[in-house]
Formats: sequence, C-alpha cells, structure tokens
Amino acid sequence: MIDPQRYPRLSRVQIPADLRQFPEEELGAVAEELRNYLIEQVARVGGHFGAGLGVIELTVALHWLYQTPVDRLVWDVGHQCYPHKILTGRRDQIHTVKQKDGVAPFPKREESEYDTFGVGHSSTSISAALGMAIALQQRGDDRKVVAVIGDGAMTAGMAFEALAHAGGMGAGAGGPEPNLLVILNDNQMSISENVGGVTRMLGRLTGSRTLNAIREGGKKLLGDKNKPAAKFVKRWEEHWKGMFVPSTFFEEVGFHYTGPIDGHDLPALLSALKTLKGLKGPQLLHIITTKGKGYELAEDDQIGYHAVGPFDPEKGLISKPGAKKPTYTDVFGEWLCDMAAADDTLLGITPAMREGSGLVRFSKEFPDRYFDVAIAEQHAVTLAAGMACEGAKPVVAIYSTFLQRGYDQLVHDVAIQNLDVLFAIDRGGVVGPDGATHGGNLDLSYLRCVPNMVVMAPSDEDECRKMLSTGHRHPGPAAVRYPRGTGPGVAVQPNLDTLPIGKAELRHRGSRVALLAFGAILPAARQVGEALGLTVVNMRFVKPLDRAMVLEMAASHIGLVTLEDNVVAGGAGAGVAELLAAESVVMPILHLGLPDEFQHHASREQLLAEAGLDAAGIRAAVLARWPQLAVPSALPHSA
Amino acid sequence: MIDPQRYPRLSRVQIPADLRQFPEEELGAVAEELRNYLIEQVARVGGHFGAGLGVIELTVALHWLYQTPVDRLVWDVGHQCYPHKILTGRRDQIHTVKQKDGVAPFPKREESEYDTFGVGHSSTSISAALGMAIALQQRGDDRKVVAVIGDGAMTAGMAFEALAHAGGMGAGAGGPEPNLLVILNDNQMSISENVGGVTRMLGRLTGSRTLNAIREGGKKLLGDKNKPAAKFVKRWEEHWKGMFVPSTFFEEVGFHYTGPIDGHDLPALLSALKTLKGLKGPQLLHIITTKGKGYELAEDDQIGYHAVGPFDPEKGLISKPGAKKPTYTDVFGEWLCDMAAADDTLLGITPAMREGSGLVRFSKEFPDRYFDVAIAEQHAVTLAAGMACEGAKPVVAIYSTFLQRGYDQLVHDVAIQNLDVLFAIDRGGVVGPDGATHGGNLDLSYLRCVPNMVVMAPSDEDECRKMLSTGHRHPGPAAVRYPRGTGPGVAVQPNLDTLPIGKAELRHRGSRVALLAFGAILPAARQVGEALGLTVVNMRFVKPLDRAMVLEMAASHIGLVTLEDNVVAGGAGAGVAELLAAESVVMPILHLGLPDEFQHHASREQLLAEAGLDAAGIRAAVLARWPQLAVPSALPHSA
Repeated sequence: MIDPQRYPRLSRVQIPADLRQFPEEELGAVAEELRNYLIEQVARVGGHFGAGLGVIELTVALHWLYQTPVDRLVWDVGHQCYPHKILTGRRDQIHTVKQKDGVAPFPKREESEYDTFGVGHSSTSISAALGMAIALQQRGDDRKVVAVIGDGAMTAGMAFEALAHAGGMGAGAGGPEPNLLVILNDNQMSISENVGGVTRMLGRLTGSRTLNAIREGGKKLLGDKNKPAAKFVKRWEEHWKGMFVPSTFFEEVGFHYTGPIDGHDLPALLSALKTLKGLKGPQLLHIITTKGKGYELAEDDQIGYHAVGPFDPEKGLISKPGAKKPTYTDVFGEWLCDMAAADDTLLGITPAMREGSGLVRFSKEFPDRYFDVAIAEQHAVTLAAGMACEGAKPVVAIYSTFLQRGYDQLVHDVAIQNLDVLFAIDRGGVVGPDGATHGGNLDLSYLRCVPNMVVMAPSDEDECRKMLSTGHRHPGPAAVRYPRGTGPGVAVQPNLDTLPIGKAELRHRGSRVALLAFGAILPAARQVGEALGLTVVNMRFVKPLDRAMVLEMAASHIGLVTLEDNVVAGGAGAGVAELLAAESVVMPILHLGLPDEFQHHASREQLLAEAGLDAAGIRAAVLARWPQLAVPSALPHSA
Repeated sequence: MIDPQRYPRLSRVQIPADLRQFPEEELGAVAEELRNYLIEQVARVGGHFGAGLGVIELTVALHWLYQTPVDRLVWDVGHQCYPHKILTGRRDQIHTVKQKDGVAPFPKREESEYDTFGVGHSSTSISAALGMAIALQQRGDDRKVVAVIGDGAMTAGMAFEALAHAGGMGAGAGGPEPNLLVILNDNQMSISENVGGVTRMLGRLTGSRTLNAIREGGKKLLGDKNKPAAKFVKRWEEHWKGMFVPSTFFEEVGFHYTGPIDGHDLPALLSALKTLKGLKGPQLLHIITTKGKGYELAEDDQIGYHAVGPFDPEKGLISKPGAKKPTYTDVFGEWLCDMAAADDTLLGITPAMREGSGLVRFSKEFPDRYFDVAIAEQHAVTLAAGMACEGAKPVVAIYSTFLQRGYDQLVHDVAIQNLDVLFAIDRGGVVGPDGATHGGNLDLSYLRCVPNMVVMAPSDEDECRKMLSTGHRHPGPAAVRYPRGTGPGVAVQPNLDTLPIGKAELRHRGSRVALLAFGAILPAARQVGEALGLTVVNMRFVKPLDRAMVLEMAASHIGLVTLEDNVVAGGAGAGVAELLAAESVVMPILHLGLPDEFQHHASREQLLAEAGLDAAGIRAAVLARWPQLAVPSALPHSA
C-alpha cells in the first residue's frame, strides 16, 4: 500500500476524479509525488521507466483537465503508460506490472475503461483516435479525443497516413473536420534548461515571431545528430535552417499547430491544453520532454533506462556479473559481424531496434553497411529487396511481431521476385511479459504459406548460427526465426558452416511414436521422447519440409506428433499433415502448438506451460493420445 | 508488326539504344508516334491506358538520356509502364498484354532486364530505388537510379518512410548520402494550357521567385477538391496559401527539390533531367502531367479510361448493353447501401478503391459515412478499430492482396482487441490477368491463423450478401472473402438475413467420399460430386469450422476432399485436417487448392484450370486418389 506520509496527495488519488479535486496550484506537488512513486515502484520490480518519467506532467495535466474516461485518451506504443495507470485505479497494483495476472505493461482495454485503445506496436494512436473522433461526431457526442505520440513513432508511415487523412478531412476528403488533439511528445532532443526557456517562449508566440529568434533557438535545440531519430531531428533542423516556423510540416497536412512548449512546465502545459480544448478541428500540440526526467541516471542513459529490471533507486542499475549465457539475439549479433567480415556484400537493416535486435557491435564495426531506417518496417523490407536487385545480400533484423507490418513487402517485393533477402526474426513464438501485442505466435503460419520462402527454426544457439549462414548463402528469400532470450546453452562454433536445405536431423531413434519438433521446443520434446523411448526428430526446416524424413518416420511408427511454439492453425505441424495427405499416407497425427487465442502477459516459461508445451504438458498430451506409451518400452500389443 | 509508314521513327526503335540514335530535336516526333501507337494497341486489346498516355514524354526522355538498362529505372505501381515496354523490346508484343503467355501488365524482372523491379502494389519505388542506389554505391558503381512515383502513391506511408530515410542519410542516419532521383508524377491536377506556362516558369525559377507570382499560380493550379487525391492537393494548397515554395515538404525530409515543370513539355523535361543527372544526393523532380494526355476522351474521363477493354479509337469506349450478371463487387456495393440504410452505425472505409471495391453508390448516398483514406491500408484498418471502440460498425472494403499491407493492424489493433470490424475482402483467391502481384491466393492462410477472426467464403452471390450481413451483425472481427468477377448467377434476395456462425450446408448427399468446398469453388465441386455420386458440402466458414459437420462426414465416408481457391499451405483444408487430428480421426484426406508458387498472369479460368481446380481437374484428382469412384454408384468393395 502507498505510504500516506511520503505521498500525502497521491495517496488520495485512486482515479482521475480524485485528482480533479486538487486545485491547479497543487498539481506540481502531485506530479512530484507521482514521479517519486514511479521511481520507487519500478525500482522494486522493473519495467518501462524512462518514457513514463518523461510524461509525468503531461499525464497529470491531461487527467486533471479532461473528463477521463468520458474523454478519450490514446497513448501511442504505451511504454509511457505507467503514470497513467497509477492515476487510473492501478496505483496499488503497478508493482505487479508484466507479471502473470498483474498489470499489463501497455494500455489494455479489458483492464480498464481508462485504457481506450490497446497498444504495444508503434504509431497507431492517430489512426485510432481519429476513428474514435469520427464515430463520436457521427452520433453527435462531443467528448474529446486526445492522442499522445512520440517523435520516434511519428516516423512510421501509418502515422503519416493518419495525419494526412485527418488533416484532409473537411476539405474534400469526406466527412466533416474531425475534432482531435494530437500531442507530439518530442523526447529525443534532450533539451537542457536554458533551451527550455526558448521553447516556452516559442510556445507562446503565435504569428509575430521573428525568424532570427527562431533560428537561434533552433541551433541550441539541436543536439547530437547521431541518434536513432536523426531523420526526424533533421527534418526539424530543415525547418529551422530554412527559416520556416516549426509548424510547417503539420500545417501542410492540415493540422493547426501549437508549440513547441516545455512538457515539464506544468503551468505552460495546462495553459496550452486549456486553449486547445476549446478549439475545433485537428490540432497538434508539440511538447519537448526529457526521457527519464527527474531521475538523473535515466536522463543520462536514456537507452539503458528505457526498460529495466529491479534496481536500487540510490545507485541505479548494477551491471550483472559477466559470463552469462548468450541470448539468441547475441548469437545473431555475433554472426552478423563475422559474416559481414567474410562477405562484403552483406548489408544490415533494422527498423529502429539496434539494441533489441543485437546490432550494436555491427553498427560500430560496419557503420557504412548498417542501416537504421527508423520505425519503418514496410520500407525496411522493400529497401532490402532493392539492395538484393543489385547483388547485395541484405539481412533484415526484425522482431516477429513487427514483421507483420512488413508482410505485404515480404510477399510482393521479396518473395514474388525470389530475391536474396535474409530475415533474422527475433522473438518468434511465445514472447511473454510484454503480452499479446508482442507475441510471435503467428509467424510460421503467415510465412509458410508464402511461395519461394525458406523458413528455419533453430533448436539451439549453434544451430541458429548455422541457419543464419544457410539463409545468407541461399540465393533466395529465407527466414530464421528464433525465440526471445536464451537457449539450451549449446556452445556456438565460430565457423560459418551451413546446413543442407530441407534436411531434418534424427536426434533420438526410439520406437512406436515419432516426435517431430520445430525449433525451440526440441529440448522439451527430447526429454519426453527419451523418457518414453520415442523417436525424436529435429525438423529444422518449416519450409521446405524434409519429405524423405517425414515419410520414413510415418512408415516406421504408429503415430506422429508435431511440436512447435506457433499456433497450430496453419503452422509447421499443419505442413506435415499436408505432406502426408499429399502422399496418401493415413496415420494418427497429433499437433502440439499454441492455442487459437491471444495469450496474456506472463513469463515465457509460464505461457509455454499453460499451452502444454513444456515437457510435462507434452508428455501428458502424448500419453492421453497413446496411453500404451506409458509402459516405457512396451512390445507391440499382442493380446 | 508495326507499320513503318505510320510509324517511321518508332518502327526503328526496338530498344532504347535505338532511341538514342535520334537527335534531340526529333524526340517530340518519336513521342507523338509512341502515343499514337499506344492508343492503337490498347484500343485493340485493352489494358491500362490513361497512366501510360500521361508519361509518354517522360518515358522517351528517360530512356534517351539515361543508359538503360545499365542505369536503373523503377516505375511505381506500374500502370504507366506500357510506353516503357514498347521502347524496351516489347513493342511488337504489347498487344498480348495481360493475356496468358503475353506481356505482363506491370514491370516484371523475369520479363526484361529493363524492368528493374516488379511492381503492382503502390508506393514501393522509392524504397526499392534507394536500396539499389545504396547497393551500387557500396560497390563503387556510379550508374544512376531513378524512381517514378505518382502523387496518389505518395500518400502511402511507406513512400514517406522511404523519403525520410533517404533524406536523412548522410546526416547521421547511417551511410553516405544516396544518389537517387525521385520523379513525382503529379497527374491529379489536370492542368490546363495556361497553367502549364506558369508551371514551366516555376520549373526554371530557382531562388529568386516572387511569392506573389507563386501564389497566383497556385490559385490556378488547384482544381476540384472533391477528388480522390484531395489530401495531397490540400497539402500542396497549404504550400501555396502559406506562401511557402512548393519545395517545402520534400526539402524538409532532406531532398533537393526541382519543379514543378510541365511533364508534357519535352524540351523542359530534358533540360531539367540533364541538370539533375549531374547532381549528387537525393533529388526530387516534380512534374505535372495529365492522365490520358493526347486522347481527349481519356483526358475527360480519367477514371473510365484508367484501364479499358478493347475499344474503337475513333469513338472511344462503348458502354455495354445492360442486364449483365452482377459481380461480387456489385453485390457488396448494394449490400453496403442497404445495410447502411438499416443501421446508422455502419461506416464505410476504402483505401483509394472506391470504384474497384463497389463504393460509388455508397459514397453518393452516404457521403458523411464514407471514408476514402487514400492509399493507406494500415491506417484504414486501425481507423476502423478506433471507430469500433466507440460503438460504430465499420466496414473495411479492401482487395485481398492489399490487405497484406494492413496485416499487422488487423492482428494488433482489431483481432487482439476483438473489435467489431468487418473486412469485405474483394479479389480473394485467383485474380488473373494482373498477375502474381494482385493474387489473393494467401488470405485464407494468413487470416485463419489469427485468433478471434470469423472467416467466411461465399459460394454464390446471395450467400455473399448473407455473409456480409452475418459479419456485420457479429460483434467481433469478421471477414468475407469473395472472388473477382461474377459468380454462378444466383438471384440475390434483398433482405438482410444472416447465417448461423460456423454452420456448413450439406448440398448433395452422396456416398463414399465427401467433397468439402470452401467458397467460389463450390459449383465445380458440385458438378463433380453429383456426377460421381459423392457428397458435397458447402463449408461456408473457414473459421470457425463446422465441427459437427466435419465429424459427421468423416464418420460416414471413406475419404474427405477439401477444396478451396487458396494455397493448400495453411489454408481452409489444412484446418479440416487439424480438426480431424485434434479429434483423433484417422482417415484419407485429399487437399485441393492452389499450388505453392506464384501464378503468372492469365485469365482466372485459365489459372484455375492450370491448378486443377476446374471440374475436370477436380474429377481427375479425386479419381486418381480413389479410382474405384469411376464406377458411379459402386457398392462397397466386397472382393
């Protein structure tokens, strides 16, 4: 429970209606308590951190000024939603974030009426908020709709599509002008105190600003350009350098622009929001905030403090003792550098996930062959296709869940043209604490149906490396799909050896039933298979399947079990069944995989166990189907 | 063969090297011949028309000035590629366009070395060209790369992503500045002769232009704002109204801007291109052209002449005699209006496909509930999700192949949140003459794996209407996927009746083998089933499957055949196999569907026959598996 001594105001706020009992003058003190409480709670259990600290004042201002949940507040991506959750009924549960049955790490409609739109992927908020605004206006309901989107998220195409649509309405693009406020939370610039003054001044200026003053402000505003959001920064820089007011971009697409203002200056923020609340039409408020604001260590290391494990608020993050097991992400990162050294046609592409995808070392060692395209998965894939047309061998490093956003490009630009692009798909299968929005549960299904694709799933770290080499050497589209986190701990050989395409590996010769395992589930399958004396095959290739191996297994066993950490619907196991049907083989088959439902957040292990994909679950399912297997090496039934 | 009397110059041009033999002064005459030849040839066989007429001068200028195919020319979408194909070795075959074994209707890498990137979907050209430029620069190859993109295509998010990435390079976003020319072919403005003079003037002006002159020009430049590209027009209008030079938008994202110039003024075009060819870094040339240029009827009816059947060049298109069979698109369009009249929460969304998706009548009768979001599939889907959050019932009308571009949004924004969005998916399954880029061969696979989805496939027109009503009434995400063109011709009942979710329909009670048909393939299946005395089931629901029906069929037959016009991999038939496996039913099953390859262009009927999905093919496949069925009503084998 919250300590009323330390948090005299916050302890009285369960929901925004309580917050609205405070007079405006006290909101600064509420914000201060909220910031301290967030630091205390996240230090306790970990979670997304810097983004929440950056929007403390904004969150207080919005919930105080707007009648939430009647008015609609849409947070983009959702990394910044912890302060919002604390103020909207989840103050005392925030320490359960990301844990099974705990608070979700992102806004989630079923969790709270204050979470108007579930997020996790970037850049959806303007589209969603516009949809809400339109639907409300259609029925004459004048409640307000506000979207909060970061500058990073603004680089994605769908944010641009939504801005252009909203801005064009009322001017021939159908429907009346939508009443919608988009707040651009510009937190990449790490503005310092003195610049904060300039931005506050700019926020108050309307038409009479002098270009010189703006230009001077612009110079101070621009920091290190070697940042992930450099493209967006550069765009702003063009505004300033070109003597345009910063409104240009948004005014062009039809929004009325206000700002930039200092997003940590609560009175300025409230003043701007009060004005905007009374205005009709599409409005954009540009605020400048600092990620990690108010916790110095987080301000100084914004990447390190984006998401954290438990830490000591006094000392900050403690780096863990060395010699830990490498993750699949690490295995990929090492392979990428080694292969790049061996093959100078290799080019590496990431849609704004340098750290998450393991590209830090590559970006330093091969800066000219490293391409961070910002949050732009569609472009990332077609860019790779273009590179492949000229004989380069691009590697697109991407999370499974985000590849969904480049699906058309994978089909239309890569697969149809049979181009030599390697997809290194991280976070395939069950992902865990981030919840359903980040799950990689569908990729084997949506990839397997695409002609020309080679689809691989490694069962250990060394195999992952070999598959990456295999995909890279294969002169056509290929995907290696590996899970989040660590594998079984197999030593990774430093060579660049490849595997024969479409060949499975017999891991354990048993009898009666054969377990055909795809990818990360192999160790659990092997445990069960060896215990029950069954055959275990490491299938390796989801596509093309090892036809000879499947037919041999079918011929020599009474039943087959397919195992995968992908939904059963259309997954790797379905491919085995299709093969058997095509070959007129009729025999019992059992498909084990993820259920036909979206999983809630919990640890990867918990979710696998729930789905019956740990060793115990696999054993139970196999025995339920073939009870006779309980007798370890039973002879064929004869009575 | 081309007539050397009528075409004294074009008849001497087989490839661009021949074109480059002509002196610059003669290029106007070549262009004139090319335009006439295009009109003559398209009139003969039909095809995409207006877009090609709009780029006659541009095509001549590019192939004359650049060393194609050494220099790389990337056409966006590809509707405008016929003149390019005529000048690049396909002059005498252009009359075979879209026909089986004929010239492809879009650029296609395997068809010609001049077709550097295969297209069909919009807005990929900048990404692809940037990829090429990067790969070439990496290996020190200084050949040129040019992308040609229309203003409509520029509205899609991925074009914005590519512009922002290209423009940000060399300024902290990785890699050196790319050498790339993007030509914005702005053809929605239908400029008239006098305005053409203004734009030519603007094209020559550099830094010294007066804002007043630009403003005056701007006023003339802006036509009817109730056009599909109204958002883009509005954006330009803001430029003009706001007294910014039109370069602002592109300069902001880091491109050097030249234009606008009259794209039909060959000397002006050549002059601009010559200058740009010598410049480094990302360049944007803005040209204004007229779709249908030089064929008056097409200029006056740009939508009608976008793509045409054979016509008389003297008289133009002849409207066909009435009382033709309605297409599935027509059935959808009628249903949408009828349901909108009955339910005022229905809102209709299209990503720039009003005509193709059958929304013309709806857009007129319900203008406030009609939303054309431009080429922006991602936004279209999430916009619908936002609407559904507020109790509206949005219908997203979209082609199967383009839904691939909104896949992440369908999963992340609609399905995870179980929101009430109906997808009316046109051109599902085999599409035909437009080729692989437009195929809807994968949708049942990539939709079936998504939890919460209801997926329906109608077997006739009336069922399509009932399924649309069913999906609309169902309080969650649903998809109705229907084919291109006409159905069997079943009379459509005007009511808004629904079907029970997840219930199949027994169409013909036979024996021995049951044919389980999904969607449009039912009539062919029925023909075979009735002839051979087999059972025929109209499955209707791909998801959820009718479990009771499948199990009953399994229990009462010696074998099951699943039939669908989707790839077998992960398709509806795989769902039946998964169900049988889950129920421990072991029996022969045969999956008939599309092959695991991308289909070339041909008629829908030809492609279905090639895939063995016409009645003859189905019969042959069934008899190959069960030869005993050849004896119509054979008794059970007893000897």
